[in-house]
Amino acid sequence: MPDYQAPLRDLRFVMDEMLDYPAHYARLPGGEEASPDVVAAILEEGARFAREVLLPLNQSGDREGCLLEGGEVKAPKGFKEAYAQYVEGGWPSLAADPAHGGQGLPPSLAMVLNEMVCATNLAWGMYPGLSHGAADALRHHGTEEQQATYLTRLVEGTWTGTMCLTEPHCGTDLGLIKTRAVPNDEGSYAVTGTKIFISAGEHDLAENIVHLVLAKLPDAPEGSRGISLFVVPKFLPDAEGNPGERNGVVCGSLEHKMGIHGNATCVMNFDAAKGYLVGAPNKGLACMFTMMNAARIGVGIQGLGLTEASFQNALAYARDRLQMRALGGPKSPEKAADPIIVHPDVRRMLLTQKAFAEGGRMLVLYTAQMIDSVEHGTDADEKARAETLLGLLTPIVKAFLTEVGFEATNEGVQVFGGHGFIQEWGMEQLVRDARITRLYEGTTGIQALDLLGRKVLMSQGESLKVFTREIHKFCQAEEGNGELAEFVRPLAKLNQEWGEMTMAIGMKAMSDREEVGAASVDYLMYSGYVTLAYLFARAAKQARMALSEGTFDAAFYRAKLDTARFFYQRLLPRTRAHKAALEAGAESLMAIGAEDFGLGFEI
Amino acid sequence: MPDYQAPLRDLRFVMDEMLDYPAHYARLPGGEEASPDVVAAILEEGARFAREVLLPLNQSGDREGCLLEGGEVKAPKGFKEAYAQYVEGGWPSLAADPAHGGQGLPPSLAMVLNEMVCATNLAWGMYPGLSHGAADALRHHGTEEQQATYLTRLVEGTWTGTMCLTEPHCGTDLGLIKTRAVPNDEGSYAVTGTKIFISAGEHDLAENIVHLVLAKLPDAPEGSRGISLFVVPKFLPDAEGNPGERNGVVCGSLEHKMGIHGNATCVMNFDAAKGYLVGAPNKGLACMFTMMNAARIGVGIQGLGLTEASFQNALAYARDRLQMRALGGPKSPEKAADPIIVHPDVRRMLLTQKAFAEGGRMLVLYTAQMIDSVEHGTDADEKARAETLLGLLTPIVKAFLTEVGFEATNEGVQVFGGHGFIQEWGMEQLVRDARITRLYEGTTGIQALDLLGRKVLMSQGESLKVFTREIHKFCQAEEGNGELAEFVRPLAKLNQEWGEMTMAIGMKAMSDREEVGAASVDYLMYSGYVTLAYLFARAAKQARMALSEGTFDAAFYRAKLDTARFFYQRLLPRTRAHKAALEAGAESLMAIGAEDFGLGFEI
Repeated sequence: MPDYQAPLRDLRFVMDEMLDYPAHYARLPGGEEASPDVVAAILEEGARFAREVLLPLNQSGDREGCLLEGGEVKAPKGFKEAYAQYVEGGWPSLAADPAHGGQGLPPSLAMVLNEMVCATNLAWGMYPGLSHGAADALRHHGTEEQQATYLTRLVEGTWTGTMCLTEPHCGTDLGLIKTRAVPNDEGSYAVTGTKIFISAGEHDLAENIVHLVLAKLPDAPEGSRGISLFVVPKFLPDAEGNPGERNGVVCGSLEHKMGIHGNATCVMNFDAAKGYLVGAPNKGLACMFTMMNAARIGVGIQGLGLTEASFQNALAYARDRLQMRALGGPKSPEKAADPIIVHPDVRRMLLTQKAFAEGGRMLVLYTAQMIDSVEHGTDADEKARAETLLGLLTPIVKAFLTEVGFEATNEGVQVFGGHGFIQEWGMEQLVRDARITRLYEGTTGIQALDLLGRKVLMSQGESLKVFTREIHKFCQAEEGNGELAEFVRPLAKLNQEWGEMTMAIGMKAMSDREEVGAASVDYLMYSGYVTLAYLFARAAKQARMALSEGTFDAAFYRAKLDTARFFYQRLLPRTRAHKAALEAGAESLMAIGAEDFGLGFEI
Repeated sequence: MPDYQAPLRDLRFVMDEMLDYPAHYARLPGGEEASPDVVAAILEEGARFAREVLLPLNQSGDREGCLLEGGEVKAPKGFKEAYAQYVEGGWPSLAADPAHGGQGLPPSLAMVLNEMVCATNLAWGMYPGLSHGAADALRHHGTEEQQATYLTRLVEGTWTGTMCLTEPHCGTDLGLIKTRAVPNDEGSYAVTGTKIFISAGEHDLAENIVHLVLAKLPDAPEGSRGISLFVVPKFLPDAEGNPGERNGVVCGSLEHKMGIHGNATCVMNFDAAKGYLVGAPNKGLACMFTMMNAARIGVGIQGLGLTEASFQNALAYARDRLQMRALGGPKSPEKAADPIIVHPDVRRMLLTQKAFAEGGRMLVLYTAQMIDSVEHGTDADEKARAETLLGLLTPIVKAFLTEVGFEATNEGVQVFGGHGFIQEWGMEQLVRDARITRLYEGTTGIQALDLLGRKVLMSQGESLKVFTREIHKFCQAEEGNGELAEFVRPLAKLNQEWGEMTMAIGMKAMSDREEVGAASVDYLMYSGYVTLAYLFARAAKQARMALSEGTFDAAFYRAKLDTARFFYQRLLPRTRAHKAALEAGAESLMAIGAEDFGLGFEI
C-alpha cells in the first residue's frame, strides 16, 4: 500500500525561510494567532490525520466506489467516520470568519493542509472541499439570514456544499443553461432543471447538503447576463435551522468515471425545488466566479498533492527494486543487482516529480500569501496588488499544476515499470485521479484563455507587468551574486522575453482575435515554467544563504540546489518548444477546413 | 459508443502513392500475390471485421473483465465468438509461411490490419497478438517437429501463444530469473517457477495455449548468459498432435489493472510442467529477442491504433458539441453556439492527434517495408541495409509511438471536457489502455537505452548514418524545390544536428557511461520527431505532386499539407527542449545523493 509523509521539512523551508510566513502572519489582522508554534502544531496534526485516517481509505474507496439506492448515496466504507473525525477536529472551520463560527486563521494555512488531504485521498477530500466554494459564495453574496442559516453549518462542517453549474448540453458555456427559477409567493423560487457532474451532490457524510445552483429567472436576458444564483438545500431548514422537510432535489444517477471513484459525481434533478436567490437577480455569473476562483486554486493544489504522493512512493520503490547494474559499474555489488535509483533515467523521472512537487508547493504558498492579503489585508495598495497577482496566477496554479501533476503521476507509474499498471501498487490510481484535475473547474484550455485573454491582454499587459517587475527586481538585486548566476541570468532573459512575447501576441490579436486562442495553452505552459523558475531561483538563494551561514541541515539545502539546477537545465528548456509553437500563430491551426480533418478515414 | 472507420484513404496515400507498395510487393518473392486489388480487398474486409465484430466488444470487455474460476479463465462475453470468426476468416495465417500452413502474404499487410484491430479492441487483439511472438521464436529456433506440432497450430489460430519472461523480482533484468528447467529422461524438461504479467496466459478462446518460457538449466552460467527457452503447452499434444494430457502449468491469479481489462494478465505457476528446449541451451536470450522485436513493433502499432481511434471520436464530438462563439465572431449564428471545432485550441488538440496518427502510420509502413525485406528479400545488400534500419527504428516505433499515443489519447479526453472522464463515452478507456504500451515489452527507458546505447553508439553511429544519409539525399534532391522549402530546410538542419549531437554524446560517453542513460529518453524522443519530420516532408512532396498534376481529391492533399505544416510548426519545436535537456548531461541527474531525494518529507 502506498505510504505518505507530509513534507513538513520542505514546508518549513518555503514558509519560514523563503517566504517569511511568520512576518506575513504577524502583519495580518488576527494573524498573530498563527504563531510559528501554532502553525507547526496544526501542520503536524494535519499530517497525522491525512496519513492515519485518510490514506488507509484511499485504495478501498477507489475499489468500492459510491452506491446509489433509492435516491440516497452511500460513500465508500469509512468515509463517513473519517468525515466525522474531521468535523470533530474542527478542520472545516479553521480559516473561517469567527462571525460565522470560524477559527479565523489565515486561509493559507487551510491550503497547506489541503495539500495533505489531496495527497492521501482526493476523492474523500472533495466532500469537504466543495463546501469552500459554497461558503465563499454565501459569505460574499448571501444575506445575513442565509449566512446564519447555511454558512455557519458549512463552517462547522455538519452540512456540506455543492456547486451546481453544468448541464448536459453546457459546461464551459453557462449562458446556455436551461434550469429555471420561478418566484413562489413567499419570496422563494421554484428551481427546475437537471445538473450534471455535481461532485458530492448526494452522500451520507453530512446531515444536509447546500446546493448553490445557477438558474434563469423568467424573462431573464439571453446568455450569461441572465444567470442567477440560488441556494437550494437538500432538507429545508426548520424553525430552529435544523434539517426539516425534504426538498425537491434528488440524485438521478451516479457517473461512472475514470477516477475519483470514492466521490459521488451526481446527476441532480431539481423538480420545483425551493431555492433562495443569492446576490442580485441576473448577477449569478459574478457570484459563480467567487466560488470558482477558490475552487480553481483548490484544483491546482490537488495536482500538487498527487505529485507529491506519487513522488514519495516512486522514490521508495526506486531505492528498493533491484534491477540491472549501473552503466558505470556495480553500485551494490553485494546484491543481485543495483537498486534502480542508480540509473540516470530513473533519476530523471524522480527529479521531474520532485521538481514539480517542490516548485508547485512554492507556487501555491506564494499565491496563498496573496489570498491572505486579499481576504484580510489592511493596506489598500498591497491588497490591490495582491488581487492583481492572484488573478494572474490563479489560472497558472490551476492549469499548470494539474498538467505537470498528470505528467508527474505518470512518471511515478513509469518508475514502477509494469507494476505501475497494477492496481495493487496504487500508482495508477493517482494517474486516474489526476486526470480529472485537467478538466473540472474549467479545462486547461479555458484557464489559458482566462490567463492570456482576460487577465493579461484585457489589462493591456498591466497584470503581467506587476509580476515581471517583481522578477526583474529580484534579478537586478542578485545580478552581482556569482553563486546565483546559473539561475539569475537565464531567469532575467526569460522574464524579458515573456514580456516581449506577450506584446507580440497582443499586436497580432488586434488584427485577428483567433491569435489569442491559438497562443493560449502554450502561453500558459510557458508562463508556468517561468514562474517556477523565479521561485526556484529564490529557493536557491535561500539555500545558498543557509549553506554559507553554516547549518546542521546542509544536505537538505544541497538537495534543494540540485533540484533547482535540474529544473533549470532539464525542464525549463521546454519554454523553447512552447514559444516556437505559439509563434506559429493562428494560421497553423485555422488553415484546414473543419470538413477536411477526417478525409483520411471518412468515406 | 465510439465509432471507427479504418483510415483506408490515408493508407492508400501512404502505401500506394508515397511508399510505392505495389512496386515493393512486386519485387518480393511471393509478393505478386499481394496485387493492389487483393490488398484493397483484404484491407476492406479487415476494416469491416474490426468495426463490426471487434469494436462492439471493446467497452463491454472493459467493463466485464476476465474471470478466473478453478484455474480456468473466461474472457469477456463475445471474445470467444469473435476469435472463432477471426480464425474462420483465415486472419492468423495471412502472413505466415505456406510451409506452416500460412498464406504467404507479406508481413507488412498483417501490420496494417493490426492497426485496425488495436484501434477497435486492444484487449481482444492481444489474444491473437501474442501468438506472433511465439510463432516467430518457433519459426526461427524450433525443431522441425516443434514447428509441425506447435507452429502450424499457431498459424491456423486454433492454438494461441504466450511469452513467459517476467518474474516477480525481475522484468527488465532477465538474468535474475529463478524458473528452473530440469532434464527429464525422455528429452523433455521439468519447468518449475512463477511467471507474472503473462498476457493471454490462460483463456477460453483457443483449444490450447503454447507458452514460450525462459528458464535456467541446472548449472547454467550466472546472469543472462544462462537463460534457455522452452516451449511448454497447456495441454500436451497426443499422438495425433491434438490437445491431450493437461500439463503442470496453471493460472494462479489475474492481475487487476488500469486498463486492457478484457485481456487476461496472468500469474502463471509452472510446477514441473513438461517443456521442450527451443534453440540451443543457454541461448534463450537471443531467441527471446526474436519474439521481442516483433512484439515491440506490435506495441508501437497499438499506440498508433489508439491514437487514430481517439482522434476520430474527438473529431466527431468537436463537430457536434456546441459551446461558446468563435473569438472572431459567430460561425454558426443559426445555432445556440458554435461547434467547438471553430476554437483554435480545440483544433490544436485535434491536429496533434491527426499528426501523430498520420505520422505514426507513415513510420509503421516505412518500417514494415524493412520487415518485408528482412523476411523475404533476396538482395543481400538490401537485406542488410533493411536489417540495420529496422534495428534502429524498432525502439523508435515502440517508444515514440506509445509516448505520443498516450498524449494523443489524452488530447481526445480533453476535447470532450468533463465528458471525457466518463466511462460511457469511451475516451478514458483509450487512455487507460494506452498507458500499458509505454511499459510492456520494455519501457520507454529501456527502448531508449537500446536505441542510443546498443543500436547507435555500439555501431559507432553507423546505423544512424544509414538513415541520416537517406534523409540527406532526400533533402539534396529537393533543395531547389521552392514549394517544399518550408519542410526541407528545417529537416536538413535537424538531420545534420542529429548526427552532430549523437557524436557529442558518444564523446562524452567515452569518459562516463552514465551519459548514455542520462541522454537516452530525450534522445529517443528527439529521434522520433526528426523521423516523423522526414516522413512528413515526403508526404508533402507527394501531396504537392498530386495537386500540381491535377486531382479530383485536392482537399485530401491540401489537408495533408496543412497537417505536415502543423507538425513542423507546432510539434517539431519540441526537439529544442529535448536537445537542451539531454545536453545538460549526467551531472544534472547524478549530483544528488540517493539518500537525499527525500529530505523534504523524511523524518
